[in-house]
Amino acid sequence: MTKLNNTQDLITYVARLGDDAIVFGHRISEWVSHAPFLEEDIALGNVALDFIGHAQMYYSYAAKLSNEENTNATPMTEDDFAYLRNEREFQNHLINELPNGNFADSVVRQVLIDLYNKLYVDALKKSKDKTLAAIAEKSSKEILYHCRRSQEWMLRLGDGTDESHQKMQTALDNIWGYTHEIFELDDTEQCLVDAGIAVDSTVLKTQWLQNVTAIVEQATLSIPTDKWAVRGGREGYHTENLGHLLTEMQFVHRSFPGAKW
Amino acid sequence: MTKLNNTQDLITYVARLGDDAIVFGHRISEWVSHAPFLEEDIALGNVALDFIGHAQMYYSYAAKLSNEENTNATPMTEDDFAYLRNEREFQNHLINELPNGNFADSVVRQVLIDLYNKLYVDALKKSKDKTLAAIAEKSSKEILYHCRRSQEWMLRLGDGTDESHQKMQTALDNIWGYTHEIFELDDTEQCLVDAGIAVDSTVLKTQWLQNVTAIVEQATLSIPTDKWAVRGGREGYHTENLGHLLTEMQFVHRSFPGAKW
Repeated sequence: MTKLNNTQDLITYVARLGDDAIVFGHRISEWVSHAPFLEEDIALGNVALDFIGHAQMYYSYAAKLSNEENTNATPMTEDDFAYLRNEREFQNHLINELPNGNFADSVVRQVLIDLYNKLYVDALKKSKDKTLAAIAEKSSKEILYHCRRSQEWMLRLGDGTDESHQKMQTALDNIWGYTHEIFELDDTEQCLVDAGIAVDSTVLKTQWLQNVTAIVEQATLSIPTDKWAVRGGREGYHTENLGHLLTEMQFVHRSFPGAKW
Repeated sequence: MTKLNNTQDLITYVARLGDDAIVFGHRISEWVSHAPFLEEDIALGNVALDFIGHAQMYYSYAAKLSNEENTNATPMTEDDFAYLRNEREFQNHLINELPNGNFADSVVRQVLIDLYNKLYVDALKKSKDKTLAAIAEKSSKEILYHCRRSQEWMLRLGDGTDESHQKMQTALDNIWGYTHEIFELDDTEQCLVDAGIAVDSTVLKTQWLQNVTAIVEQATLSIPTDKWAVRGGREGYHTENLGHLLTEMQFVHRSFPGAKW
């Protein structure tokens, strides 16, 4: 791969992918030991660990790039990215940080993100950056499994009782406005798209909408028509929920810096 | 296997093994997204899921036995055991329900339980009850991995800094009194031991103490000499911590009975 003009852009991009994965993985992990039944408890736990594992791969690549760029600084690790950055430095898409809500809310979000991730990593496999392509390759099998699982839940609850159907539709209506920013690019990512490194998420939207519509309709639900959209995650502007999440997630690490005790 | 005089005893025994596993699995899962670093987050998550998986196997066997015994009652499932019994009905050993404390407390408890579980499932593999023997066989590989992991942590922290050493010794002193009841049998279990079905935990103590002493001394720590002992778990008498744990663990399931919404 040709040397980038601006490695900092690549670090930002890779860390963003890590941020999406760790914030969502943390949210899913909140279900462990709180799921409606044992089988699901274990399944959700495994999905959470998959996401945290993806975050680990992205963060450790971001750390490696940082260390190559700043040879005089104290070497960074994956943990510095996860635990020592503040809210404004996290650049995850907002959909990942929303509270879990009820089980329907969680299922709907999971479907929307899983179907997005599937298209995203398929495209990332073709990145000119060999490390990113390898991470995409490595995570794509897990993401396929996530897609199958969450779509089954959508069918089961959407096409279930009146109450479950209603809860699913409400969830879809509430979350929909957060799906727009995941298909937008800022200058940083656009420059990496032009270099053949980052994924052009703008071109994924049509296929994603088609896939989402298929499962939503099969589950007897409807795609929301509301036009409101929430943005800001990639610029570090967050809902109030991220601060609480990071407090919880970073507390132990920050209390024992470097886990040296 | 010969038909037991009292299947209820067997159900009680199997459910107890499930209780130990689910309560401890829940405790470990509280570390997910709160571990000191990412690698450990994922490892602890996997260990928690192993324990919840073991609980699932024991509970589903207990449910099967109950259904065969009470053919006229509404069929029970593994979830009924996990989510619909109250504090007095749980008969886990108390060591499993203690709060996590700091990371040293958790490491010490993990070593003590892992080394116990290893001897326990090795003996359970020889049970005349084929289902129990199969569950033991299935879980023993995971338990070996747990032993390796937790003992590595004990070495690292016990033989680490002054502070980590001190925290580990304090943890060992605090938890030690909870290790006595895990080697005791009540009449229910004694009767199943005599029938070649349950494990005679009383005979495991010498080997366990030898194994624990070996790793404790290698970690430059000392086996406590205090004689106090806490008992009651197998009779359903618990520390105040179990009630809080069950409230959290059972809340979702009890809120959506049968997950029928």
